[in-house]
Amino acid sequence: MLALEAWTMGLEPWVLTETPHEPAALVTQRAVLGSIRSSADIQNFIKNVDLVTFESELIPGKILSEVDWKNVIVFPSVANIRILQDREQQKAWLNQHRIPTARHFLVTTYSDLQRVVREFHFQAVLKKCFGGYDGYGTWKIQKEQDLEELKPLFEKKESYILEEWIPFQRELAIVLARNTLGDVVHLPLVETHQKDHRCDWVQGPAKNAQLEKFLKSARKALKDLNYVGVIAFELFETQKKQLLVNEVAPRVHNSAHYSMDALELSQFALHLHAGLGFAFEKPKLLAKAFVMVNLIGKRDPILLPQKLSGTLHWYHKAVQKPGRKLGHLNLLGENLKTLLRKGLQQRDRL
Amino acid sequence: MLALEAWTMGLEPWVLTETPHEPAALVTQRAVLGSIRSSADIQNFIKNVDLVTFESELIPGKILSEVDWKNVIVFPSVANIRILQDREQQKAWLNQHRIPTARHFLVTTYSDLQRVVREFHFQAVLKKCFGGYDGYGTWKIQKEQDLEELKPLFEKKESYILEEWIPFQRELAIVLARNTLGDVVHLPLVETHQKDHRCDWVQGPAKNAQLEKFLKSARKALKDLNYVGVIAFELFETQKKQLLVNEVAPRVHNSAHYSMDALELSQFALHLHAGLGFAFEKPKLLAKAFVMVNLIGKRDPILLPQKLSGTLHWYHKAVQKPGRKLGHLNLLGENLKTLLRKGLQQRDRL
Repeated sequence: MLALEAWTMGLEPWVLTETPHEPAALVTQRAVLGSIRSSADIQNFIKNVDLVTFESELIPGKILSEVDWKNVIVFPSVANIRILQDREQQKAWLNQHRIPTARHFLVTTYSDLQRVVREFHFQAVLKKCFGGYDGYGTWKIQKEQDLEELKPLFEKKESYILEEWIPFQRELAIVLARNTLGDVVHLPLVETHQKDHRCDWVQGPAKNAQLEKFLKSARKALKDLNYVGVIAFELFETQKKQLLVNEVAPRVHNSAHYSMDALELSQFALHLHAGLGFAFEKPKLLAKAFVMVNLIGKRDPILLPQKLSGTLHWYHKAVQKPGRKLGHLNLLGENLKTLLRKGLQQRDRL
Repeated sequence: MLALEAWTMGLEPWVLTETPHEPAALVTQRAVLGSIRSSADIQNFIKNVDLVTFESELIPGKILSEVDWKNVIVFPSVANIRILQDREQQKAWLNQHRIPTARHFLVTTYSDLQRVVREFHFQAVLKKCFGGYDGYGTWKIQKEQDLEELKPLFEKKESYILEEWIPFQRELAIVLARNTLGDVVHLPLVETHQKDHRCDWVQGPAKNAQLEKFLKSARKALKDLNYVGVIAFELFETQKKQLLVNEVAPRVHNSAHYSMDALELSQFALHLHAGLGFAFEKPKLLAKAFVMVNLIGKRDPILLPQKLSGTLHWYHKAVQKPGRKLGHLNLLGENLKTLLRKGLQQRDRL
């Protein structure tokens, strides 16, 4: 989606890809075979381009630091990616800027875990510091047995954080963008619904009285990093309507895919505008209400139907595995309930 | 733009192209080198695909008829393309369905021309039957001298039509789409402004009291052809507010590029939906007013600026020649005058 938007805007997207079948590689003649886990491949790749950005924050920090970036503009910066890709450092950054987030402890051994899980009265979540997503690398702990099952994890020397479990009311998300001039815009707040730890659908715009306060802190925190690009905050809304940051992703984000149709400017365009130093205007909402429904792989392949209400965005993933996000459907309208029913019905028919 | 839209919708766009540098070829790994003027190249190309459509109606009819199309779905049909690519046949089709259009005569010799130009009292336009566009292959005739200058044209055996000159008030345009089920939708009527015989900018939505009547005839005429896809009608609005068809283009059209941002569904999506047999909903307008400004090549290359209001669509043409359409800018808003001023100012700054 970033590559398609790049073409539209007049940029020539080059893609570093392990196979020519990756979605981003399909849509450009400028696909270069190589691995994002090889600093030599990255070094070789960036010779072709002026501007570099990332689809994923999960390039190991060690690899990123081995690359000489001096002839390209990189956004977000490698330093920013390294902080935000590590849950412990991400939490430290949030705490430093008094952005509310669940309490946590760093955990590197099983005995650490045994000790601190009691601090949270067995209402806790263990998360890998690096590399977890969509429920992978995340374990809820509610009883002794849950704890025992996690013992084998600590045979490998990896770091984790243990977080207090937040009994949230709703899950929300918001995307901000900061450009090279230091301007910040935010997209509408949305409500996200997860299924099997994966974003299932999103609706918006959502409201929360704490939003302005959160945004004020977030802007400061981004300024402190000199962050450039789009950044997504996944939020818990507690019973008392407090906002707590669950996770931060330094990239375009599934929760803002609605922006491709519901806003005058998509998050993909906004991300590129940020890196190019374009002055921002707050992207206008083009409908009263919007819904984004993820199309998720099942046992049988999804066949695209003759007719879909709303706008389909299909990712052309080479393999349709169960649980994989294969595309999404955006719907615009007046009434959230109607839109959501329509969106879910459409999906059921696939 | 068609290829980008295809990717988004879940189609895999293959492109027959003379060079790998053509805009449509850049955005897909599936670019096949070959010529649209070779029936062998077309035959070889269509082995790769299920569905064929055209970016241009200017593939010679002889070439189209030499290809065996039996294993693919083609839209619009080859028969339709052959009728509509020929100004004489296009006129006959319009007349048959009583769709108002300027009077004309077929002209194949200079003596024909000398004779019929007098019928129109030296207020006439000569047009090549096949292959003219953006003022190429079109000559206004107002005096004897204009006539004499055209004499050399008739050394080659080509056909022309001579049309009565219409002293129009405004130039308008409208795009309709008809799908394989026979459903027809139309996009908003727009006002187009030409400069040097080329579309310079477009604004809309426009109004004309005759529109419903025109649409009724156009729908019948499309049904008669069993036309499938998007089709553009360029219209003259006379002093008496009558609508006369100037030209018809059986394809996506510059006058509807605004649809990429101003409508819920672009003309490119609509064209593909038509060919796929998707049921139509009339695409909703997302703003009160819209403007589309073409970015046209000048002597010096256009450099993209740091900031543009509105949405840029850049075509990545390999060569920036003066007069070539290189991209366009779409603006949405409330007020046409403000939008147009903004759009033209943006362009001046390039």
